Amino acid sequence: MWHLYQFPLCPFSRKVRLHLAEKGMAYELVREDPWRRRDEFLNLNPAGRVPVLREDDKNIVLADSRAICEFIEESFEGNAMIFGNALQRAEIRRLVALFDEHLYGDVTAPLLQEKMKKRLVTREPPDARVLREAMKLAHEHLYHIDWLVDNRAWLGGPRLSLADLAAAAQLSVADYLGALDWRGHDQAKSWYSVMKSRPSFRPLLAEKMDTIQPASNYADVNW
Amino acid sequence: MWHLYQFPLCPFSRKVRLHLAEKGMAYELVREDPWRRRDEFLNLNPAGRVPVLREDDKNIVLADSRAICEFIEESFEGNAMIFGNALQRAEIRRLVALFDEHLYGDVTAPLLQEKMKKRLVTREPPDARVLREAMKLAHEHLYHIDWLVDNRAWLGGPRLSLADLAAAAQLSVADYLGALDWRGHDQAKSWYSVMKSRPSFRPLLAEKMDTIQPASNYADVNW
Repeated sequence: MWHLYQFPLCPFSRKVRLHLAEKGMAYELVREDPWRRRDEFLNLNPAGRVPVLREDDKNIVLADSRAICEFIEESFEGNAMIFGNALQRAEIRRLVALFDEHLYGDVTAPLLQEKMKKRLVTREPPDARVLREAMKLAHEHLYHIDWLVDNRAWLGGPRLSLADLAAAAQLSVADYLGALDWRGHDQAKSWYSVMKSRPSFRPLLAEKMDTIQPASNYADVNW
Repeated sequence: MWHLYQFPLCPFSRKVRLHLAEKGMAYELVREDPWRRRDEFLNLNPAGRVPVLREDDKNIVLADSRAICEFIEESFEGNAMIFGNALQRAEIRRLVALFDEHLYGDVTAPLLQEKMKKRLVTREPPDARVLREAMKLAHEHLYHIDWLVDNRAWLGGPRLSLADLAAAAQLSVADYLGALDWRGHDQAKSWYSVMKSRPSFRPLLAEKMDTIQPASNYADVNW
């Protein structure tokens, strides 16, 4: 059995969960709060980060979400999420990197820092200036998604790809934390509504953290 | 003809240069200082980052160093830098991510910020505290490389792989900036000496920036 060590609001764990679900792979979740730095978890991944994908019978331990997704693509056929010729695959991977690094760095990471870690770990109040800046930059990323949706069937090309999963994973965390203003982003909103409707997405929308409740429209497909 | 838009001290540009050279691909360098944010360059890569790999005749523009390296692997046979079964390939990619993200974030990025950007762009003096912290963390990464070299022929497995190129690219920038203390790291040093001796590495070692000179032993294979 595959086990995914993950944290509910980790966008990279969410990307891998969506990928596993789209592939139809059975797996079990293991909750891991990376800031606790458990010895047992650090033995699995010295970098101390989630997600980690583990298969005990085969003695497999995989770390880094992009390495995990490439492994999933190479190991399990059907419903490819990185597809097409080398050029199309490079475009999907470019967008995955853009969402993993820029959307995360500009929006998700500061939101998690201010709205989650400060509450759960350091018990400080959030910095309103940092939150405003993240919400401003979120608009830039939503405009980019509007543009992609205007020009393609899906973000990475003619079919659902890892680019859609990577973007939706980041946005779902920002949305949980109530930081997305969808007004003026009809194309991005319609795309995200379709993403939310997918069976792969439902478990994410149903899951709640004890101490931090999701924004009111977080789980609504039509909001 | 392939053109690589790059900056001499960008570790991700260096990784792609090493990869192209190990593959024996002919290409031309285009110097791009990303902080200038040239319109022509932003049209190629709206994220504004180097490296970008371009082929005009085929109308190909590729961005993101990992997406570029996957493209190179998929498009040009021979001398594979991501090889083996899915598990071995995942291990190579895990290490590439570790060097691209952690070694860069802990060591190369603060060094570039303090020793290059402040000098070239903002004209501020470097922050000695930040430099000390980066040099301290560099030891942790060198210990990790010592451990890998003790346990494997090369960092990512039995042969030279993209993991070696990614690590050497980061370390070569830190070494240029005079921030690596190799004492106590005999294994890492012997591995890096072998890397420096490779024909793919020579052009990097020969190249100098006008305003920032390399450390005295930067280009020596035996130092």
